Amino acid sequence: MIIDCHGHYTTAPAALDAWRKQQIAGLTDPGRAPRASDLRISDDELRASISGNQLKQMLERGIDLTIFSPRASFMAHHIGDLETSRTWAAICNELCCRVAELFPEHFIGAAMLPQSLGADPKTCVPELERCVNEYGFVAVNLNPDPSGGHWKSPPLSDRHWYPLYEKMVEYDIPAMVHVSTSCNACFHTTGAHYLNADTTAFMQCLTSDLFRDFPTLRFVIPHGGGAVPYHWGRFRGLAQALDRPPLETHLLKNVFFDTCVYHQAGVDLLTKVIPVDNILFASEMIGAVRGIDPQTGFHFDDTRRYIDAAASLKKEDRQKIYETNARRVYPRLDAALRARTEILA
Amino acid sequence: MIIDCHGHYTTAPAALDAWRKQQIAGLTDPGRAPRASDLRISDDELRASISGNQLKQMLERGIDLTIFSPRASFMAHHIGDLETSRTWAAICNELCCRVAELFPEHFIGAAMLPQSLGADPKTCVPELERCVNEYGFVAVNLNPDPSGGHWKSPPLSDRHWYPLYEKMVEYDIPAMVHVSTSCNACFHTTGAHYLNADTTAFMQCLTSDLFRDFPTLRFVIPHGGGAVPYHWGRFRGLAQALDRPPLETHLLKNVFFDTCVYHQAGVDLLTKVIPVDNILFASEMIGAVRGIDPQTGFHFDDTRRYIDAAASLKKEDRQKIYETNARRVYPRLDAALRARTEILA
Repeated sequence: MIIDCHGHYTTAPAALDAWRKQQIAGLTDPGRAPRASDLRISDDELRASISGNQLKQMLERGIDLTIFSPRASFMAHHIGDLETSRTWAAICNELCCRVAELFPEHFIGAAMLPQSLGADPKTCVPELERCVNEYGFVAVNLNPDPSGGHWKSPPLSDRHWYPLYEKMVEYDIPAMVHVSTSCNACFHTTGAHYLNADTTAFMQCLTSDLFRDFPTLRFVIPHGGGAVPYHWGRFRGLAQALDRPPLETHLLKNVFFDTCVYHQAGVDLLTKVIPVDNILFASEMIGAVRGIDPQTGFHFDDTRRYIDAAASLKKEDRQKIYETNARRVYPRLDAALRARTEILA
Repeated sequence: MIIDCHGHYTTAPAALDAWRKQQIAGLTDPGRAPRASDLRISDDELRASISGNQLKQMLERGIDLTIFSPRASFMAHHIGDLETSRTWAAICNELCCRVAELFPEHFIGAAMLPQSLGADPKTCVPELERCVNEYGFVAVNLNPDPSGGHWKSPPLSDRHWYPLYEKMVEYDIPAMVHVSTSCNACFHTTGAHYLNADTTAFMQCLTSDLFRDFPTLRFVIPHGGGAVPYHWGRFRGLAQALDRPPLETHLLKNVFFDTCVYHQAGVDLLTKVIPVDNILFASEMIGAVRGIDPQTGFHFDDTRRYIDAAASLKKEDRQKIYETNARRVYPRLDAALRARTEILA
């Protein structure tokens, strides 16, 4: 089977956006603040928002299952306070849960966390617990910059984040390190901030002993690892200069890269440079780049084509990238798939 | 000949660092503030700092000429005020000028600007004029983030920067877009901040009409363009989604990438994806990554080996990357080289 480890609910019904706008309006005018129960989206609306979009393209591309989380750019942890984020995350996660329940063969959830600038990450634990225990989610998205492009939180290696890591380790779930909208005019959200965050997170791990403290903690770096694989020699050289162990032992038991790189040459580099056990198939579809590449006639984000065409990969490598690695990195996904098979058997 | 467009004076005599430390101490204790004339470095000291370092490696690697500017990480435009940066830039530029005078065949200068957070970029113009007119410098380094990792200045496309661009256009000199030390704990200077800035600058150009306003303005994006070539499909797709012209016409008459990518696979991607006319040879030696790659037995930053081995390049492509492109992008370099030839003839 083919598992896409990076999908967001970018096509949610318009009522969700309208509710959020009301919530934001309520921050300055409390009389306009909506209640969570004011948002009503029917199952039919959810089905329609998925079946003509993500699911349609998954079926066309032969992707069986997507690890599905709330829209990354809408997390916007810089807006409001902890309570704002708590309500918003709960709503968004519940919608992803409902999508997974409506299409159980094709979607399984990953949680948005109710992060908020300055708030202790342990405040995210209750929502995480709820998503894992009640919704059956298999991962979380962790935003290393809840300030939205101002980078005001400590690095991911700081003990600041440890309460969250303890819970992740307890539940044996990985985090995709994924920022949200940039409210810094210097950074375009999907063209700069996302890629910068990926590179930044990797380097924060490289300079630290985070994985000595948490040997089973796992991070998935999205967007093909930002600049990292392209500059793999630089990072190997920096590790050496900084007296760190080789990257293979220092980071690659804990850090994984997805395949959201939207052209053949990029995927060729990724699959050549990064050990195959550290690559997870993903397309982030329908996401930042939705158009058709005039050079190929296919969608830029149709990453399966690049993996299928990557010359350095053998058949067994593709099996790892498409399925086996994801089942290893997301053990709760593996357990859910096994449980399904047993029910069918 | 082989021109390296990206070299910094990273090996300046220790007296320079000591002077800077005194200058910084003087910011809080004016009694300790040194005068510029307190710094004394002899020609012999300059010669020794170069001949056993950069020049030695240039000769070993067959690099003829380096465009040489003050140490990027030492610019630290976030320290002190405009006057601090003015004095510091003047000192650093003068040292590079003296190196170029001592080794005229092998070095030619590029200017550090006396940028300072919040200061109008037009305050940089007098130092730029001095460096071009008195020192014969052929380019400038432009720091898009004088705050040192907090990104508090407007994007490069903002009119904020236009007074500088007007002078660059008048003098027909390019800018290498190069940040300095990060004082944001999230960003490792050479492992994250440098690469992020490259990606950020490219995206600032992509989303703007900067080169419609300045059709002859030229930016060199160092470190192989950050994440850009690896994600070339993403950027092509974003340009399309944002209704910008194709990158070739929108940016590639004005934006160039250097070859500071420290492994073969990265340079292979760069030279395959980016048109050869937009690639400038560089190594940033002796810089961020000074060690020997145990996989090859050669220095990580010995980028000539990667260019020589890049399978997609023809002989005439290498000629462009090594020399012709630099002479086109840096017309004052070309003029200086022509003047030399005429003197010899």
